[in-house]
Amino acid sequence: MPRYKLTIEYDGTPFHGWQAQDGLLTVQGVLDSALSQFAGHTVESYCAGRTDAGVHALGQVVHVDFASPRRAFNIIRGVNIYTLPHPVVITHAEEVADDFHARFDARMRHYRYRITRRAARLSVDEFRSWHIFRPMDMAAMREAAAHFIGDHDFTSFRTSECTAKSPHKTITRCDISEHGEEAWVEISARSFMHNQVRIMVGSLVQVATGRWRAEDIRAMLEARDRRAAGITAPAHGLYFMGVEYT
Amino acid sequence: MPRYKLTIEYDGTPFHGWQAQDGLLTVQGVLDSALSQFAGHTVESYCAGRTDAGVHALGQVVHVDFASPRRAFNIIRGVNIYTLPHPVVITHAEEVADDFHARFDARMRHYRYRITRRAARLSVDEFRSWHIFRPMDMAAMREAAAHFIGDHDFTSFRTSECTAKSPHKTITRCDISEHGEEAWVEISARSFMHNQVRIMVGSLVQVATGRWRAEDIRAMLEARDRRAAGITAPAHGLYFMGVEYT
Repeated sequence: MPRYKLTIEYDGTPFHGWQAQDGLLTVQGVLDSALSQFAGHTVESYCAGRTDAGVHALGQVVHVDFASPRRAFNIIRGVNIYTLPHPVVITHAEEVADDFHARFDARMRHYRYRITRRAARLSVDEFRSWHIFRPMDMAAMREAAAHFIGDHDFTSFRTSECTAKSPHKTITRCDISEHGEEAWVEISARSFMHNQVRIMVGSLVQVATGRWRAEDIRAMLEARDRRAAGITAPAHGLYFMGVEYT
Repeated sequence: MPRYKLTIEYDGTPFHGWQAQDGLLTVQGVLDSALSQFAGHTVESYCAGRTDAGVHALGQVVHVDFASPRRAFNIIRGVNIYTLPHPVVITHAEEVADDFHARFDARMRHYRYRITRRAARLSVDEFRSWHIFRPMDMAAMREAAAHFIGDHDFTSFRTSECTAKSPHKTITRCDISEHGEEAWVEISARSFMHNQVRIMVGSLVQVATGRWRAEDIRAMLEARDRRAAGITAPAHGLYFMGVEYT
């Protein structure tokens, strides 16, 4: 059976997260149903990283097997009709080696977190960015972000529900950029633990709004205790941007 | 009564356009109700330009009169609670002279039209950008846009329902820029007729997709006949960006 690598985009707002669950609207539920209708047989997708309820993706990656070869163009146009009316689509498709695995072969995952700094609550970007009302010290936030770069034990930055064997992760990028009233936090690593990006961003924002100093991030890492780190940033500001493979 | 100039932002998706109508959800209906609750008396807003159903605004402007002076900060925070749960907010507020008029004093209005060029239908940007599937010749589109600059009779580019006295308008900007898979058409003029921006954009896209040549725009203008111009681009790609006053 030929294997395909598909790039998936979705608005996370209406979904109960990625993973298929009986009786709930999930990204995987809609996608696998559409893929199965398109293929004429049961198809199960395997993703690079499950996302929580409300989290968006511009570059989620899955692999799937079809019984017979399909052209990329036909996969995109065909499956995206079957996902209607839900906001999840395939943006790219390509045939890959039959041992390609979207999760295990991933070498780097990229996330973006959008923050909007202003007095007014959001309208056009409601559910698409985190609204921060208080003034933010962006220099302190950048100084704090630098403490995350490299190998660290991220025990303080994962939910108590996280089942990852090792809490050691390597952050290769934690950049903060400003775009008018928006600020983006862009974080990359080979892999992350459950809620890790959101707890990192929540802690950075609490430095920027004066709850902590930049150097407190180091103490949070060293504490190896979830209670030592900051709040979990809301899901709706987070975008899974893409995955790199070797 | 002190007069205020308010900048209004809204997601046009759920609204039946700007203008208050009995029994329908409209931007003005929600805004005036919130302003009246905030002020403790009936408030009616006067806008720089009414928008149609589905059209968004980042910089609509209105003027309103309050019985007593209010601080800008309190207006923004107070009114934006009363507009909940609808996606319309005040982003800026300032006291102005009591003869300021949001519509009649406007010297320049700015619109942006968002187009997304790709195979997949939209998910995160559904209802926020016009999805164009066919390849677009951006050089031809820019050449076509240049024909709009300056004074012209825009009879071919207004709906048959438009009641403006004169069809002569002066376009000061009609720029096309590319941002990844998006293209933006940015159009500025002192004033526009009903659906004028959408018919201009629809015609430009039809040049870009090969239905017409760039120089056909000139013949459309000269025809002074709505049937000579192109299609009306959908409302959901259009953003009212801002208004300049002297």
